[in-house]
Amino acid sequence: MSGSSFGQLFRVTTAGESHGAANVVIVDGCPAGLPLSAEDLLPDLARRRPGQSRIVSQRKEPDHPEILSGVFEGETTGTPIAILIRNKDAKSKDYSALRNVYRPGHADFTFDQKFGRRDHRGGGRSSARETVARVAAGAIAKKLLAQMYGARVVGYVIQVGEVKATLTETPTLEAVETFADGSPNIVRCPDPIAAQEMIQVIQAARKNQDSIGGVAEVIATGVPAGLGEPVFGKLKADLGAALFSLPAVLGVEYGVGFGCAALKGSENNDVFVQEDGVTRTKSNRHGGMLGGISTGMPIVLRAAVKPTSSLPQPQQTVTRDGEETTVRTLGRHDPCLLPRFVPMAEAMVALVLVDHALRQRARG
Amino acid sequence: MSGSSFGQLFRVTTAGESHGAANVVIVDGCPAGLPLSAEDLLPDLARRRPGQSRIVSQRKEPDHPEILSGVFEGETTGTPIAILIRNKDAKSKDYSALRNVYRPGHADFTFDQKFGRRDHRGGGRSSARETVARVAAGAIAKKLLAQMYGARVVGYVIQVGEVKATLTETPTLEAVETFADGSPNIVRCPDPIAAQEMIQVIQAARKNQDSIGGVAEVIATGVPAGLGEPVFGKLKADLGAALFSLPAVLGVEYGVGFGCAALKGSENNDVFVQEDGVTRTKSNRHGGMLGGISTGMPIVLRAAVKPTSSLPQPQQTVTRDGEETTVRTLGRHDPCLLPRFVPMAEAMVALVLVDHALRQRARG
Amino acid sequence: MSGSSFGQLFRVTTAGESHGAANVVIVDGCPAGLPLSAEDLLPDLARRRPGQSRIVSQRKEPDHPEILSGVFEGETTGTPIAILIRNKDAKSKDYSALRNVYRPGHADFTFDQKFGRRDHRGGGRSSARETVARVAAGAIAKKLLAQMYGARVVGYVIQVGEVKATLTETPTLEAVETFADGSPNIVRCPDPIAAQEMIQVIQAARKNQDSIGGVAEVIATGVPAGLGEPVFGKLKADLGAALFSLPAVLGVEYGVGFGCAALKGSENNDVFVQEDGVTRTKSNRHGGMLGGISTGMPIVLRAAVKPTSSLPQPQQTVTRDGEETTVRTLGRHDPCLLPRFVPMAEAMVALVLVDHALRQRARG
Amino acid sequence: MSGSSFGQLFRVTTAGESHGAANVVIVDGCPAGLPLSAEDLLPDLARRRPGQSRIVSQRKEPDHPEILSGVFEGETTGTPIAILIRNKDAKSKDYSALRNVYRPGHADFTFDQKFGRRDHRGGGRSSARETVARVAAGAIAKKLLAQMYGARVVGYVIQVGEVKATLTETPTLEAVETFADGSPNIVRCPDPIAAQEMIQVIQAARKNQDSIGGVAEVIATGVPAGLGEPVFGKLKADLGAALFSLPAVLGVEYGVGFGCAALKGSENNDVFVQEDGVTRTKSNRHGGMLGGISTGMPIVLRAAVKPTSSLPQPQQTVTRDGEETTVRTLGRHDPCLLPRFVPMAEAMVALVLVDHALRQRARG
Repeated sequence: MSGSSFGQLFRVTTAGESHGAANVVIVDGCPAGLPLSAEDLLPDLARRRPGQSRIVSQRKEPDHPEILSGVFEGETTGTPIAILIRNKDAKSKDYSALRNVYRPGHADFTFDQKFGRRDHRGGGRSSARETVARVAAGAIAKKLLAQMYGARVVGYVIQVGEVKATLTETPTLEAVETFADGSPNIVRCPDPIAAQEMIQVIQAARKNQDSIGGVAEVIATGVPAGLGEPVFGKLKADLGAALFSLPAVLGVEYGVGFGCAALKGSENNDVFVQEDGVTRTKSNRHGGMLGGISTGMPIVLRAAVKPTSSLPQPQQTVTRDGEETTVRTLGRHDPCLLPRFVPMAEAMVALVLVDHALRQRARG
Repeated sequence: MSGSSFGQLFRVTTAGESHGAANVVIVDGCPAGLPLSAEDLLPDLARRRPGQSRIVSQRKEPDHPEILSGVFEGETTGTPIAILIRNKDAKSKDYSALRNVYRPGHADFTFDQKFGRRDHRGGGRSSARETVARVAAGAIAKKLLAQMYGARVVGYVIQVGEVKATLTETPTLEAVETFADGSPNIVRCPDPIAAQEMIQVIQAARKNQDSIGGVAEVIATGVPAGLGEPVFGKLKADLGAALFSLPAVLGVEYGVGFGCAALKGSENNDVFVQEDGVTRTKSNRHGGMLGGISTGMPIVLRAAVKPTSSLPQPQQTVTRDGEETTVRTLGRHDPCLLPRFVPMAEAMVALVLVDHALRQRARG
Repeated sequence: MSGSSFGQLFRVTTAGESHGAANVVIVDGCPAGLPLSAEDLLPDLARRRPGQSRIVSQRKEPDHPEILSGVFEGETTGTPIAILIRNKDAKSKDYSALRNVYRPGHADFTFDQKFGRRDHRGGGRSSARETVARVAAGAIAKKLLAQMYGARVVGYVIQVGEVKATLTETPTLEAVETFADGSPNIVRCPDPIAAQEMIQVIQAARKNQDSIGGVAEVIATGVPAGLGEPVFGKLKADLGAALFSLPAVLGVEYGVGFGCAALKGSENNDVFVQEDGVTRTKSNRHGGMLGGISTGMPIVLRAAVKPTSSLPQPQQTVTRDGEETTVRTLGRHDPCLLPRFVPMAEAMVALVLVDHALRQRARG
Repeated sequence: MSGSSFGQLFRVTTAGESHGAANVVIVDGCPAGLPLSAEDLLPDLARRRPGQSRIVSQRKEPDHPEILSGVFEGETTGTPIAILIRNKDAKSKDYSALRNVYRPGHADFTFDQKFGRRDHRGGGRSSARETVARVAAGAIAKKLLAQMYGARVVGYVIQVGEVKATLTETPTLEAVETFADGSPNIVRCPDPIAAQEMIQVIQAARKNQDSIGGVAEVIATGVPAGLGEPVFGKLKADLGAALFSLPAVLGVEYGVGFGCAALKGSENNDVFVQEDGVTRTKSNRHGGMLGGISTGMPIVLRAAVKPTSSLPQPQQTVTRDGEETTVRTLGRHDPCLLPRFVPMAEAMVALVLVDHALRQRARG
């Protein structure tokens, strides 16, 4: 109901601004008996964190999550899990110049229109800082999906600027995170050749005081058939909302996506077959969902992410009072959002899947 | 919460199957004092209706809506509005052959997986017949938006197969529905040259016992700045869910959409300017929403719609018992979903906008 | 969320006014596979119906429910069940004198304050006519509870005016509905001596152009331990809201209820014992719920129901314009609400229990 | 939706156990522009706190609330307000003996039945410690009600054991908190004679290693007419749920409450009159709500609170394994819950009222 809650049975509520005291998430509805500690949250938080590589924002956020409730003697109790993540590197004075300026592409103007005011420090509640709470909750969702089904949710970058990846198989988390030589895949593109080109494109954007957009893909494997509701609660609708709820996402598609527009039915339909007593489809142009309900095939989604709106170069704009001015953002912003977007997208997909898993369980 | 309800303050709940007795919608939360009668629902129902032209399904559905409650002496009372639309042309025997067969691209298999059973007649609850309830509710939402803001929601087809429309200005409802010579624009593409090509493509698909996909665009004008919630209740997230909740939608984007991937920040950002005392943007690559909140610029969305899954040509598949078989759908299906998709998409967009309008009003 | 929906996973949405075309209910979330037909709804509708005996309203409402969706080949499909009950005996002209008068004890004034208008015919949406939709939905809930647990929900009258029943055992539906001699227990009090006195009190009230209040009790047996949520979703809270949502209810209690105020802890606590391998309590002063969660003991609730506000005798009041006037209600009103209240209360209790049963199933 | 959230537009979500790290509450939907600081929360937290007088639990909980988000430069921003209250005096070893024992009257058994486990330390999530989060949220709700309407919510004790207060006028907060001589009214009963008797009854209960029940009343004045929804969202239903959601509440009533059972309609109805251009009722037996919607008259509610279940004297019970045992609770429990119940009840009433105030504002 409220704008800061998500999910029905596995329900996440967040609070917190970029430069306030802390970000908080309450996860309600997690079943009892899941082994859980703060350590379980660290890997995804590290993947989301600024400062993790040379192609992302250099802001420092150590992100030490504290589990305040809902876990007893190492396992979830079934009661709500509250997680506190304090904001550390909140240099508020950096932002005082932005108090009355509307940065292009940002929510400064719309927050003022909505609330009549805003916390202008670092974007306040509209900052991507807020996703730290979602990634923490998503780590719990992933663990539960693994426990329930052995399901996995993996995201990666498939396009940066004009560079597109070529994938020959479903990427593993390892391939996303690490190159064959063991060095970190800082752009999170499992096609190593495209990855190197993407890194160059991002570095060029930074050098030019600019930024660059891209596309991420998320695959969920091991999800059983039958999740999702027929009409408004379609799995694709909830997944779409989940990805669109992330900052900077301008488009979402699944399966063949927008490519379906140019296809004939005879080309697009996936044929049902029976294999080892299981009904499945030969191909997966439908992206794992039919009628909005999972088919048991991998769920394949893509999100288009716009280039970072904050730029070191001067941009023309107006102040709150309507006077013309220019604005530039100095330092510590991502020249490309995609590498850090990947764990955010995975988290949102995992939250939707686990919610529908519990909803389906209620059906008996 | 439930899979058959949508919206928070302007809340729609639907019930009904393709070949059951009726479809029903309850609209709860409509403010008191809106003039309303069944006649207000007829135009959009007629635009959604099968049999309206030679390029859509020839199934006959006269769709006489009956308002059962919530309207007194010609105006809404503030209590729930129930609308009943009986199913007329429900030739159930046409469908008996489909009882145990999984049609490719349809929800037959997933319903069986979810519920352990299904009403196989015409797709049951997964049929696009269900959208008749949404279009009726959407007509109320549109009327309320017009009353509150003078806002308008207009959809149209911009792509069928490889044919793409070229638009030079925001289309009016009239341009969408009628060619310059007064004849009906049966494909609902406001580019008359592209429209004629699209009609040919659709007719060719029908002739070849096939179907064809496409893309629709919806523009909402007159929507004030400030609608939408910062985090999970972003306007773009709710609009995304709304469009993805429609049958056959594989992708949704707004503003530049997936095109943002290849853009630099300096190319993509829309510059704020002041005009006549109003802050707006010079361009509208952001599609009317920043930070998930409306900016006052036109809201521009696109949805990719797959080619109709039902085909007159035989398709390979399996039965419920896993045995190989073929299936073909004889008669009365749309060779292209797009022309009838337009009013459905408008309805869903209008429902989201009016819900957020009321939510914003609660903020005082 | 909305004011016309109830429940989370077994979710009921109603619409309809006293003298409009119909009352409608959509039941969403009923699991697939429950045998169901309109006949299943008739017994409780008959118990709720006016005109069933000489001590209730003589308004005629035959109440033929039509199931419009969600049932296929005699069983529920898991999709929403819409039920239509047309209003038959809606003599609207009876009510024209009430258009501008505020009847004491009724919602005429508050509806005007809330909505700025009202359907004045028979109380419109505030009429007890609206409960016909709930009773229909409750009949489904009861059937599902019986199927899941063998649970039973039975209500009855324990007080009318100063007359209080003495019960020595948990009443059966049969004892509530029928006297030992086979004649109908028209007051629904299972203590036959008190029942006769109650009938006399009610008849005296009618004769004096007055009405009389009372108390009903509802017992749910066979409900397993573990239903209800720890904090806001306590079973007692949802049951309390359920009963308070019925017209004319001024008080709700469970177990010893208000009697607990005068008790010591050592007197009030129920001792846990082990019997046949099952942990239960020796006594049931706690009314089947501890910490808001069911214990497996019978759930025992009571609701205080005020005397009918509509009276044949003249009552002083004001008009919409604030002018003094008198109002009297001629004919067809219940001198005592209790006999017809019983099936309404049972329905609401059953709706809450089945909702929590599904919620608990989601916990795995 | 979830069991740990409450309200629709002014929405509260809590987390935390008695002896975990902290209790947390997220308040979503508070309008922007309300002056707010942690100091605003302290008075009600102090009224709820153990150790405040000799007749309540002596557990020490300093309760320093920290506002983590949603407030900027001294005013609310419209984004969610997270409040953190760490648990200080959590002597967990006190509770190790209770790990496998089911205390009579407590939720130990039902939590085990529901979740298959529980945090046994001090009752875990079922402890009244959890209400600290509600009282903090309620303080915000009260401040907003005062700002919107000048409305006030005041609670007090009207019965302890057999002692009942006699009230001649609506009590003020001052009369509830302080005797005429300036000394603290530790039992919170505004009838000073009854108050002294109640204190003696409570001290006698403590001396006898026992506890005693009681009744609290809450009055909300200044609430405008028109709040509440006609059917399931009746104000009385939401208020009923609110009070029943508090620990130990066995009964709720408003207006004449259970007393209505013995009344005739002609005795119970409140007559409408016009005074100074305002329509109101002469008397207030209806407790400020008709048809579930506020009338503008004071809203008057009462809650029955059972005697504390924890007793210093030995009580018979069973262990988790079904073996007979005895249990006694040593020290630091309230001999009577009522004095500390008052601010909890006020908080819940305020939360409901402010939620409906915002809902009504959405109606325009």
